[in-house]
Amino acid sequence: MKAKIIITPKKAVLDPQGQTVERALAHMGYQGVGKVHVGKYLEIEVEGDKATLEKQLDEACHKFLSNPVIEDYKLEIVD
Amino acid sequence: MKAKIIITPKKAVLDPQGQTVERALAHMGYQGVGKVHVGKYLEIEVEGDKATLEKQLDEACHKFLSNPVIEDYKLEIVD
Repeated sequence: MKAKIIITPKKAVLDPQGQTVERALAHMGYQGVGKVHVGKYLEIEVEGDKATLEKQLDEACHKFLSNPVIEDYKLEIVD
Repeated sequence: MKAKIIITPKKAVLDPQGQTVERALAHMGYQGVGKVHVGKYLEIEVEGDKATLEKQLDEACHKFLSNPVIEDYKLEIVD
């Protein structure tokens, strides 16, 4: 099984990396491109009971993989 | 519409960030956790024709959002 975790800055938080990509895309002439948000992606190979893993990884996300003050995360476990 | 882009290091490429997270998870006592891969996640607000956007963004991914020598990317456009 694989756990996929997407960590993004909260909408209210300044995202300088996203702004830079946004400006670069506009500068390169790409049309129809709006706001850009840049986050992190984690793929973790896991083994065991899905419910237990979900609980454990959710705790890990909250405690040290993300910063809950400025970031949101989305955890998904797939076979 | 939103374009979601996931950029991950190729399997053969050293991923020190992933190794660090892997060791940290093991050190904190999480069970059943294997290899960790750390990548980037981009969310881009887009507007226009889906096929055109897909072509444009695929080109942008290849040219400057990712480094095709050491990274893989996955592009998805959702409504």
